[in-house]
Amino acid sequence: MKIPTLLKYQDPLSRVNNFYIIESTLREGEQFANAFFDTQKKIEIAKALDEFGVDYIELTSPAASEQSRSDCEAICKLGLKAKILTHVRCHMDDAKIACDTGVDGLDVVIGTSSFLREFSHGKDMDYITKQAIEVITYIKSRGLEVRFSSEDSFRSDLVDLLNIYKTVDKLGVNRVGIADTVGCANPRQVYELVKTLRSVVSCDIECHFHNDTGCAIANAYAALEAGATHIDTSVLGIGERNGITPLGGLMARMYTADRDYITNKYNLRKLRDVENLVADSVEIQVPFNNYITGYCAFTHKAGIHAKAILNNPSTYEILKPEDFGMTRYVSIGHRLTGWNAIKNRVQQLGLQLTDEQAKEVTNKIKALADIQPLGIEAVDIILREYHERCGSPSVN
Amino acid sequence: MKIPTLLKYQDPLSRVNNFYIIESTLREGEQFANAFFDTQKKIEIAKALDEFGVDYIELTSPAASEQSRSDCEAICKLGLKAKILTHVRCHMDDAKIACDTGVDGLDVVIGTSSFLREFSHGKDMDYITKQAIEVITYIKSRGLEVRFSSEDSFRSDLVDLLNIYKTVDKLGVNRVGIADTVGCANPRQVYELVKTLRSVVSCDIECHFHNDTGCAIANAYAALEAGATHIDTSVLGIGERNGITPLGGLMARMYTADRDYITNKYNLRKLRDVENLVADSVEIQVPFNNYITGYCAFTHKAGIHAKAILNNPSTYEILKPEDFGMTRYVSIGHRLTGWNAIKNRVQQLGLQLTDEQAKEVTNKIKALADIQPLGIEAVDIILREYHERCGSPSVN
Repeated sequence: MKIPTLLKYQDPLSRVNNFYIIESTLREGEQFANAFFDTQKKIEIAKALDEFGVDYIELTSPAASEQSRSDCEAICKLGLKAKILTHVRCHMDDAKIACDTGVDGLDVVIGTSSFLREFSHGKDMDYITKQAIEVITYIKSRGLEVRFSSEDSFRSDLVDLLNIYKTVDKLGVNRVGIADTVGCANPRQVYELVKTLRSVVSCDIECHFHNDTGCAIANAYAALEAGATHIDTSVLGIGERNGITPLGGLMARMYTADRDYITNKYNLRKLRDVENLVADSVEIQVPFNNYITGYCAFTHKAGIHAKAILNNPSTYEILKPEDFGMTRYVSIGHRLTGWNAIKNRVQQLGLQLTDEQAKEVTNKIKALADIQPLGIEAVDIILREYHERCGSPSVN
Repeated sequence: MKIPTLLKYQDPLSRVNNFYIIESTLREGEQFANAFFDTQKKIEIAKALDEFGVDYIELTSPAASEQSRSDCEAICKLGLKAKILTHVRCHMDDAKIACDTGVDGLDVVIGTSSFLREFSHGKDMDYITKQAIEVITYIKSRGLEVRFSSEDSFRSDLVDLLNIYKTVDKLGVNRVGIADTVGCANPRQVYELVKTLRSVVSCDIECHFHNDTGCAIANAYAALEAGATHIDTSVLGIGERNGITPLGGLMARMYTADRDYITNKYNLRKLRDVENLVADSVEIQVPFNNYITGYCAFTHKAGIHAKAILNNPSTYEILKPEDFGMTRYVSIGHRLTGWNAIKNRVQQLGLQLTDEQAKEVTNKIKALADIQPLGIEAVDIILREYHERCGSPSVN
């Protein structure tokens, strides 16, 4: 099979096959409307994420509440393979509390957009820079990993952004962060900003994308293409409003870029379990159209699709369901079905029909299904009755 | 308010503020696992889409079944503002049946990828080109609009694609179509392919994106940036596997590019109704994280977000909920809440507390919510009791 022409090119700085996941279900996800995680649930989710293979687990700021602080300590003591981070405002009090919990690093954030500077904290860039220097210096003195991120980066002044990133890079931060806090960015903007930033700082680059306008996965991909190194995710994308880049959706996307990298690094067959765990915890249903694990992600219906899928699944599937512990289903009890799919079912049942007979019984099924769809049991009864009347002796 | 720096640039050929929607719930959507639309339901959905303001409504091929054919005729007779299209294989028999139904145009499709040529129809490019010429010439002779699309365009040979598009453009097709049939494409690939195609053909360019790897909305946007003119959507994205670009998600995205264009052209307040109609018809729940209409799309929770939103909604919202007939909700009965949001609620209740008092009662609420989240009624009781003990006389 020929390698598809249009899927091959890659940027020299691209990190699409060498990146880290900062899994934020226990921070961003806690900001989801329905979320309330008690200590046991947080531990259960942290362990499941660790087993899946995420690189970092990010927790709610220990300054948010006493329980948040003690839960943070408890998770640090689990001895997970994943590094534990907590997310704090750019503020010395918060930083001190966080450094005492035992985390591996702090994700420091401050709003840099004119919107946030005017209506949120009311501080100017000089003040922000001064505060950033103090907090970063302190965290480094405690020997911890530190990321400095702006908030609402795509509505911030580019020069302000580059100035502060350059300053904190010189201070020795491990990562700078870009955040599309309102979900307004599109992939080409992301690509341009990350590419520019990549030429300004030598540290790693983390990206955080909200999904209000449907680009959170594509933006993550564009960021990696431009040289970003770390992507924030949450399970099922839960977070403020309609959430951020979902872990499963990012897996689907990155798998198309480098299947070996993704299947070797992450325990993809655990994806459904971790999604079900989180969905149950926050009392939501996994969306019908969820990436990979949604119940119709591998269901094929139209006759033309079904025929080709039965010949070679790569025709209409870019993801192999078995890599994720899922199975393929070819739907046949409806008006769009074709005779190739029916003939395949005939063979599965161990019956024998000629092509002409398969076409005739397909027409019967389509006529019935034109009135109302048929379940697979009903289709099988029709096929068995037809075979009894017209077919060759059964194979089995 | 300053216009955000990074959101402004636009390509000379960009159509992000001048494009058409080909709404395919009644074609692609019928290929969704759960979908079965009877005649009345199809008519109801077609009318709702027309009222919403979509430019085209695409229907299942009348060659698929007798009911599909007669439903197609029935919808053509409704006299809707939207043009009616049907989607047919590149085949004379199908084209003849379709032209007799009264549709305004035909969307003709054939698989051009090496995958589909080998495992689906088994035909070579010469045969495909010959068949395309015959079918297109026939449809034009009937005086109807015609689109010619490849299938699985991103795994097709680029030169093959450009050759056939150039040929059909010379024949006078109204549109050529690009289809990411398997959902493998990413926005930069889309941008490059559409930009190249834009320089080869003079007709319109339609794009169809599956969402298997989470880029269906971003790809539509990238296509419009590169000069595509028509985007295929379905309500809630329903279609084969996990579906295509959702109508609502595309609205969210395009609204950020040009709010006036979108609010003037489409009846955005009808979005929720048309989504509920389709969700009920195919027996699915609207996903918790659905664009615009998902129940948490405008819910703000973390203290830092809530404070800023109360000062100015633009801080954390790129979409105005009122444009879509939705309302904003600031969640306050949880451990992440902040005193600014509590103070706002105090004022809504007509109570009076000093800032110090608001901070004190916020700490009480956070401590209680650290054990389990509180409903708004419980928060209100705490605020009223606190006010009775400590506050100034009520305003009301």
